[in-house]
Amino acid sequence: MGKYKGFCPEWENEAPPKGSFRSILKWGDPEFFKYPNEGMYTYMKKVFNMTDDDFKEKKPEGLETVPDNVPCRLDENHLEHFRKIVGEANVKTDTYNRLRVSYGKTMIDLIRLRNQVVENIPDAVLYPSSKTQIEEIVAYCTEIKIPIYCRAGGSTVTRGMEAIKGGISLDLAVNFNKVIEFNEKNQTITVESGMSGPELERYLNQAPELLGAKGRYTCGHFPQSFEYSGVGGWVVTRGAGQNSSYYGKIEDIVICQEYATPVGIVKTGEYPAKAIGPDIDQIMIGSEGAFGVLTHCTLRVFKHMPENRKYFSYIFPSWENAQAAARDISQGEFGMPSVFRVSDPEETSVMLSHYKVEGTKIDKIMSRRGYKAMERCLFLGFTDGEKDFCKNMKRKLHKICKKYGAMYLTAQPTKEWEKGRFNDPYIREPMQDFGIIIDTMECSVSWDEMPKVHRGLREYVKSRPNTICMTHMSHVYPQGANLYFIFLIANVEPEEYLEFQAGILDNYVKYGAAISHHHGVGKAFGPWLEHNIGSTSYEIIRTLKEHFDPDNIMNPGGTLGLDVERRELKFK
Amino acid sequence: MGKYKGFCPEWENEAPPKGSFRSILKWGDPEFFKYPNEGMYTYMKKVFNMTDDDFKEKKPEGLETVPDNVPCRLDENHLEHFRKIVGEANVKTDTYNRLRVSYGKTMIDLIRLRNQVVENIPDAVLYPSSKTQIEEIVAYCTEIKIPIYCRAGGSTVTRGMEAIKGGISLDLAVNFNKVIEFNEKNQTITVESGMSGPELERYLNQAPELLGAKGRYTCGHFPQSFEYSGVGGWVVTRGAGQNSSYYGKIEDIVICQEYATPVGIVKTGEYPAKAIGPDIDQIMIGSEGAFGVLTHCTLRVFKHMPENRKYFSYIFPSWENAQAAARDISQGEFGMPSVFRVSDPEETSVMLSHYKVEGTKIDKIMSRRGYKAMERCLFLGFTDGEKDFCKNMKRKLHKICKKYGAMYLTAQPTKEWEKGRFNDPYIREPMQDFGIIIDTMECSVSWDEMPKVHRGLREYVKSRPNTICMTHMSHVYPQGANLYFIFLIANVEPEEYLEFQAGILDNYVKYGAAISHHHGVGKAFGPWLEHNIGSTSYEIIRTLKEHFDPDNIMNPGGTLGLDVERRELKFK
Repeated sequence: MGKYKGFCPEWENEAPPKGSFRSILKWGDPEFFKYPNEGMYTYMKKVFNMTDDDFKEKKPEGLETVPDNVPCRLDENHLEHFRKIVGEANVKTDTYNRLRVSYGKTMIDLIRLRNQVVENIPDAVLYPSSKTQIEEIVAYCTEIKIPIYCRAGGSTVTRGMEAIKGGISLDLAVNFNKVIEFNEKNQTITVESGMSGPELERYLNQAPELLGAKGRYTCGHFPQSFEYSGVGGWVVTRGAGQNSSYYGKIEDIVICQEYATPVGIVKTGEYPAKAIGPDIDQIMIGSEGAFGVLTHCTLRVFKHMPENRKYFSYIFPSWENAQAAARDISQGEFGMPSVFRVSDPEETSVMLSHYKVEGTKIDKIMSRRGYKAMERCLFLGFTDGEKDFCKNMKRKLHKICKKYGAMYLTAQPTKEWEKGRFNDPYIREPMQDFGIIIDTMECSVSWDEMPKVHRGLREYVKSRPNTICMTHMSHVYPQGANLYFIFLIANVEPEEYLEFQAGILDNYVKYGAAISHHHGVGKAFGPWLEHNIGSTSYEIIRTLKEHFDPDNIMNPGGTLGLDVERRELKFK
Repeated sequence: MGKYKGFCPEWENEAPPKGSFRSILKWGDPEFFKYPNEGMYTYMKKVFNMTDDDFKEKKPEGLETVPDNVPCRLDENHLEHFRKIVGEANVKTDTYNRLRVSYGKTMIDLIRLRNQVVENIPDAVLYPSSKTQIEEIVAYCTEIKIPIYCRAGGSTVTRGMEAIKGGISLDLAVNFNKVIEFNEKNQTITVESGMSGPELERYLNQAPELLGAKGRYTCGHFPQSFEYSGVGGWVVTRGAGQNSSYYGKIEDIVICQEYATPVGIVKTGEYPAKAIGPDIDQIMIGSEGAFGVLTHCTLRVFKHMPENRKYFSYIFPSWENAQAAARDISQGEFGMPSVFRVSDPEETSVMLSHYKVEGTKIDKIMSRRGYKAMERCLFLGFTDGEKDFCKNMKRKLHKICKKYGAMYLTAQPTKEWEKGRFNDPYIREPMQDFGIIIDTMECSVSWDEMPKVHRGLREYVKSRPNTICMTHMSHVYPQGANLYFIFLIANVEPEEYLEFQAGILDNYVKYGAAISHHHGVGKAFGPWLEHNIGSTSYEIIRTLKEHFDPDNIMNPGGTLGLDVERRELKFK
């Protein structure tokens, strides 16, 4: 606190009380805080027509203790059975722990927690510690028809773990988080699905010390939620990390896997590639717990060579030029940068302000050279891989950026971005304390559809007055990229917010974007999936669901839209 | 002919008679011939205990005309309906054309044709010319329950197109072979599934002239069968080209696709990546005609830059060192060579003889330096991609090869290999005229399993006396590679041959290899699929089949093992 020259709101700066709603909704480390700098604060007041007075009184903060008042509806004999499987201490039925595993980190979760809304929680939480235990649990629940939900990192933004139908939730992060096998010859690691991102990366970075390996490795998968997400969630949601342009999405990283399903164990073969029918791995990846529980997972790993990393950043005169350069780079066949992040004009403006570039000497140089505010676009990134491979890539992309009129901005802005790459989510709670909502939605598009989708979505978002809408691509391919929209809204009611979000999904479908590039579908976006992929394709997913889970006990209540109504699209 | 100093067998040197069995079994261009050089001829006589006398009389050559004597069992009203859809001239019922679309190029096909065995042919062949026609045909056949088979290039080695249950066969190569759309911005091309490899590549190489493009492109997919295979076959069998280490397998190249199925049209979205549930593309790829007919297919294309290609070849002291180097290269993170071909000692020996290296000065240098015959291993390859990316790759892999004791052999051996890369199949017919069978089987393995699979398979093949067994890896990944076995056998009866082939598949399963890396499964390997992937995984494929094709009209008769018995494994 206290870095402001003028009035400074009392931004959150204390760990939430133990057992409180706030302790569930708060992102990450209870003792870590992040809030807008004075420039950003001033900017928000302007956009949202707010004054310092609006930042003097806080909205509901969720500091209240979660009351232990929601009865468990499971019969005692079932609980007893579960206790036999996982041990007495690993079955919990208190409201707090049940709530904690059901809500994720999307805005509607946070809003409900602030307002002390407890709904859709499982009847019990189990903390299994082995594959066999999970298999026994799934078999028992199949027999008795008890719904099963799963949690690993808990950072879903699609209501992925929400226990709509009650039953049990498996909290895999607690005891099911071990390395099963490290195979240096194949460059693979097999882990339990509750393994957390940082723990996996620690094992790999310290492979000589911890795994008896010759070299050091990296998992290559770093979503923004990295510090509070887990392997299970990465895989079943078909996620991507911020370095996916080089390392690939999780479906490119998974080599083989094992699921406990109601119809038995699905275990895929450990082959680098194959031509033996439909790809079973690609059927299970993206199944979001609706077909079975991911238990063991074998991932490709990569050499850990941060010393080879080449940082760069550029400013482009326009969004059109930035897109053209990104396309040329991705089609250039000299490899792909690892972090590859191109911001549109509005996001560029916010970032330059955030990184304190606005008003500086470099800002003046940019302006003098014709890179105008609200036209110019920032491109950040770095390379990964072998040293000379990285060097060559930096040279080649430099040439392409120059061709499209970009100015080199040194490595600094990317290094600034890197510092905050995993902790931006911390900024959401202090802002929401004063009624300002930050949320994100993302999609994927081909290059030729990108301008249309970007324009269409911005038009929709901006049709709501006083809304900040920042967009970037952060996962880039020769055939297109994702578009990631970050929007800031003040003073919105929950229902109104959900309707706004629904409109974004309607517009994705309208403009022909895939409704998710890496967040998955979950229960939040489920009602749009059939619209997005078409009914004949959707029927395939329905058929698979019926095959694996005829009694609808695996993550029921709308996952992938499987047991809810399709929403009628507003914008067709 | 006549290049031999000693006795020269009368190798095939005349185009097969029109309408003959030979005209169907002969590979490729009727006017092109290839036969063993004298060194190879001498080598074979030695291995097979044969004399010149054994090469004086030919076995059945299949020169007889295919008699037009197999009645069409389809009702005239159905034929009339098909004629209405595709036009009078595009429905054929003569035996020759029906036989031609049913048999492929695996050894048992060639043996049957030489012996004038006509079985499992469709009742009619249709030559559709549009997606709509195919959709109408599938709808009609669904209604009437008429089996449908498909042919594009016709080079299956898995009995993929064999019309076991009669019905109709769609010969897609004839009229369904056009470019639908070329999208230079997205670097994609959409084609009809009967498009042939060379025709696709011609369009892309000449994109400025033929498609109005700015640049030249390549499809990046060059199986050995390239000249006589088609896009449809590549996709539905989940194939790989010889340049797959750089360009990827076909499942990496397909962006989206459209199928006519009994339950309607499946059309996937054109996105570079997505997180919207199980991957529908990866369900349809590898379905081998058992779910529906692939109509339109959108493929990624790549910049055509042959001028950047860096050729190389090395000799390694041992198979162990060659494997270690291949692994280090593929895990080196400086990109992947495009052609990446490592031969085991026996194949190296045959190749050095074939390329006339044996006995030369370079052979003596190799021997003096300790690269011993039947121990040393040949590594051939070239790079593709941007110029300096290629340069760096060649430098980096050179260093790795040196580390493992390899000697550089110049670009020449790879250029020799390149000349013959698509025409090796031509050598099979002249050899078979004298009772010598060349056939190939391939699989995929992880690095740590490779020595075991290689040793185990060689042991099995060599347990048959007088058998040549050459092995190479030709598709290499950070986690493993394929193993491609080429074997030469003399004087074997068809039944004995099939039993021998079955033993190879048994051993793949026994040693834990995927039973196919790029040939697919078809009807020949179908009975092993459930053994290979496990029953729980196999049930998923069964469920998908039941969903798409409840009446079993799509490529019925054992495709993917769907409607035949599993074989009991001999070697468990």
